Amino acid sequence: MVKSDIEIAQASSMALITDIASKAGISPDDIEQYGKYKAKITFDGLAKLQERETGKLVLVTAINPTPAGEGKSTVTIGLGDALNQLGHQTMIALREPSLGPVMGVKGGAAGGGYAQVLPMEDINLHFTGDLHAITTANNAIAALLDNHIHQGNALNIDTRRVIWKRVVDLNDRQLRQIIGGLGSPINGVPREDGFDITVASEIMAVFCLATSIDNLKTRLSKIVVAYTYDRKPVTVGDLEIAGAISVLLKDALKPNLVQTIAGTPAFIHGGPFANIAHGCNSVLATKAALNAAEFTVTEAGFGADLGGEKFLDIKTRELGKTPDAVVIVATVRALKMHGGVAKHELEKENIAAVKAGFANLNRHIDNIQGYGLPVVVAINEFVTDTEAEITALSELIANKHVAFSLTQVWAKGGSGGLDLAEKVVNACQETSHFNYLYELSDSIPEKIEAIVTKIYGGSTVTFSKKAQNQLKEFEQNGWTTLPICMAKTQYSFSDDQTLLGAPENFDITIRELVPKLGAGFIVALTGDIMTMPGLPKKPAALNMDVDNSGNISGLF
Amino acid sequence: MVKSDIEIAQASSMALITDIASKAGISPDDIEQYGKYKAKITFDGLAKLQERETGKLVLVTAINPTPAGEGKSTVTIGLGDALNQLGHQTMIALREPSLGPVMGVKGGAAGGGYAQVLPMEDINLHFTGDLHAITTANNAIAALLDNHIHQGNALNIDTRRVIWKRVVDLNDRQLRQIIGGLGSPINGVPREDGFDITVASEIMAVFCLATSIDNLKTRLSKIVVAYTYDRKPVTVGDLEIAGAISVLLKDALKPNLVQTIAGTPAFIHGGPFANIAHGCNSVLATKAALNAAEFTVTEAGFGADLGGEKFLDIKTRELGKTPDAVVIVATVRALKMHGGVAKHELEKENIAAVKAGFANLNRHIDNIQGYGLPVVVAINEFVTDTEAEITALSELIANKHVAFSLTQVWAKGGSGGLDLAEKVVNACQETSHFNYLYELSDSIPEKIEAIVTKIYGGSTVTFSKKAQNQLKEFEQNGWTTLPICMAKTQYSFSDDQTLLGAPENFDITIRELVPKLGAGFIVALTGDIMTMPGLPKKPAALNMDVDNSGNISGLF
Repeated sequence: MVKSDIEIAQASSMALITDIASKAGISPDDIEQYGKYKAKITFDGLAKLQERETGKLVLVTAINPTPAGEGKSTVTIGLGDALNQLGHQTMIALREPSLGPVMGVKGGAAGGGYAQVLPMEDINLHFTGDLHAITTANNAIAALLDNHIHQGNALNIDTRRVIWKRVVDLNDRQLRQIIGGLGSPINGVPREDGFDITVASEIMAVFCLATSIDNLKTRLSKIVVAYTYDRKPVTVGDLEIAGAISVLLKDALKPNLVQTIAGTPAFIHGGPFANIAHGCNSVLATKAALNAAEFTVTEAGFGADLGGEKFLDIKTRELGKTPDAVVIVATVRALKMHGGVAKHELEKENIAAVKAGFANLNRHIDNIQGYGLPVVVAINEFVTDTEAEITALSELIANKHVAFSLTQVWAKGGSGGLDLAEKVVNACQETSHFNYLYELSDSIPEKIEAIVTKIYGGSTVTFSKKAQNQLKEFEQNGWTTLPICMAKTQYSFSDDQTLLGAPENFDITIRELVPKLGAGFIVALTGDIMTMPGLPKKPAALNMDVDNSGNISGLF
Repeated sequence: MVKSDIEIAQASSMALITDIASKAGISPDDIEQYGKYKAKITFDGLAKLQERETGKLVLVTAINPTPAGEGKSTVTIGLGDALNQLGHQTMIALREPSLGPVMGVKGGAAGGGYAQVLPMEDINLHFTGDLHAITTANNAIAALLDNHIHQGNALNIDTRRVIWKRVVDLNDRQLRQIIGGLGSPINGVPREDGFDITVASEIMAVFCLATSIDNLKTRLSKIVVAYTYDRKPVTVGDLEIAGAISVLLKDALKPNLVQTIAGTPAFIHGGPFANIAHGCNSVLATKAALNAAEFTVTEAGFGADLGGEKFLDIKTRELGKTPDAVVIVATVRALKMHGGVAKHELEKENIAAVKAGFANLNRHIDNIQGYGLPVVVAINEFVTDTEAEITALSELIANKHVAFSLTQVWAKGGSGGLDLAEKVVNACQETSHFNYLYELSDSIPEKIEAIVTKIYGGSTVTFSKKAQNQLKEFEQNGWTTLPICMAKTQYSFSDDQTLLGAPENFDITIRELVPKLGAGFIVALTGDIMTMPGLPKKPAALNMDVDNSGNISGLF
């Protein structure tokens, strides 16, 4: 019988986190332990790391995924283990999971099979409390903002134009749209409101892009939370609470250190979704890894059109470093889906569908090469894949003269990714000529059009009436030189999740723009993308249990 | 210049938490470190402690406080330090602070001056994440409940009779009363709803009264969250999520170990408010302390009419141990207020007011003696107290033949409480004959009347129409044999916060009853008591800041 992820994880032995830190050249004095197997790096420790050399950066991204995911985290972890096995000192940098999907439906975000980060239960649950700190910081701003209005509204805030929402780190559709402040004047001011999931909070983005506590505070100050009756933006700085909110975030800001099953050190820090947010772990964690190791393997959420594009056009500008190679994860299963196969037929061999679905992978390869970066395709093997399907896919990739590797990291850990690791090392030795997709000085519509036409393969962009008005307003406010963070379905290059493969000649509608001045980008909302997921009919929570000694079961 | 609490705390040096654990006879293997100065005791560690003898239990309670508080935590900490200084191995058990008051107005809940627990910044902020786990557990129940309704409502829940509220650990009046589920059928089912502060959540009460993970799970299962259309209670067990909610709480359930400035080991675990909840730290922490030390000093929130009564009538039934002595903290300042002095005149000498205000202390002493327990009064000295005022108060207490001591623990730490410690040791040697205020088999009105007439000094209890209907309903449901948790203002014996001193011949109105079957008590809501506080005009948050190295300022 195949073991579940949690069974494999619980059967693995872990090294003490002090030993894992030593592997990365980090002294026990420079970490704060959270139990025996988790730690945060102190600010002193981060400062010491900055004096070291910067290693190679490998970005792992993917084709447009199926709802079950294509094993991107698993490949990231397995690749890190494989590089270490080959004698290259390697660190992994991943996002931390949100409890919303954990209690809902998705598998864990800590890898799978023999390519997992440990302790997987902790990582998938409260971990070191970062997401709770972000939730609290977000909601403290909301409470202080509404209190300001309640106590006389000295800043003249238009309560119909409060854009700061509250958040919970849960899938809770009931809170998407609410009216608060009801019942009596002592209960605040009645107004329409709503909750997002924590990972969609601008605080999460600020947290992930901040380079120090001071930088965090500066970013927090700039966050726009509302507009006055005469349409002037009101910021966290105007509320005089950037200090207090930084106080709530200062411990969370320290990157978290854990280990893989193979003992590879891994930073897991910050976790925005890539469909509704920018989708990468913190800049501080990636920086620390780059300084601590010869190779850093990191992932960006969902497909290369979402997390990948945002990593390259948003995160690298703050990180000060672009990838030396990009791994695109593909699966035979997902390509068959892109080739038109229905979900319940995916387990049957279908070579024609693989060939048809290759169009999706093909465009992602072209896109990454368009940034001037070397690409390696990782075919993440599933037990249902047939030899003929894999051969067909391999030939298509080989014909493009792109390096590729069949990986079996789920089943074998790092040993299943040694060939991939060798090809990644080779790719990192190529000379890359990175160029951004757009210049920051381009107008907002130009930047959005660049993403839509060059990355998505669409032909036109339509701005809703609301978005058109916002474009004028943003111009007046001087907010045009920021990068764009697209909010789009992860399942398709387009804004229609049913358009699989490599759709062409489609239009993307920008429903609304959201200024995220703290994060330093403008969010463009497309289609019906929601910033608060719901739970399925049978949530994953129904299977979970814990015994009297604290051992968890039913968590993936 | 007088140093602030945070300045004193930051100037203090701390022992490693492993050394503090050793002082309590707890092996480093039995703790999980959270940084160098905080730890949780593992379940194995708790099991080992249970094999040791049970020490003496000292409960610290108080007169009805002023809004600034009378220094109960400070006396608790100072008394613990003093007992250790006298050579009695002592532990302290305290509640963990809520972020709501921290960001709002109140001083920290980590003591003050030279009687503080450290690291005070961490303890007052996220600490080890327990309150966040409780918030998440509470809100996961809400999300899963609303999802059940949204997905077809198989349990036939009447959406007008959902009694489970969401929570945030913040003072956020805007969320007291809301309508959720608005906008579209995909956003859930529109219904009236509201948020409480986390410390008022039944999860907090369950958490504080649970004796093991299994017991936690059993309690969670019993929580009533709603009623069906035919008025049958719906529980967490009916939703089949007690396992998942226990998973979210299992780490939080381990007591947190820290130290005082003097190096006395202290458990800080669980933190319900005593006005809207039961007001004591966790049973697991108090048990662990009793087994680890010769003396355990613990506190109950607000006055002896609230936290004290609930400690004795609710917590001791789960703890299996009653106090060996009770310390009642009084201040000259607060007694003057009870004697009729206005807030802005409190700094002037007023012996007549001290004598008049003594009525408040007098009733609290009588009440505790009524339980059959030895009392020691601690007069917590403030710089504005005059010698004549202290003499007057001392005489009044001496005339009652009650032990008392003038303590200066704020200014001197344990050395300022040596006399108190000696008197407490003596009191613990008396033979106590504890008797409960009421029997569990008494009816709900009988139990409430016992509290109102014997503890509060009131004459009658009025039940609102709603409460009367609930009494019938609770009888039908078989919920009559639980203890009562009164929700009442902390400032007065009555339900009117302006009635200071020792009011008589008043009526208490029970507005509503709330069944808390997981916690195992019935909450009786009196007057306008709110379960979600608001922020003041100038919240404490406005003063807080953190520098680039992570040093916090402006936190008390």
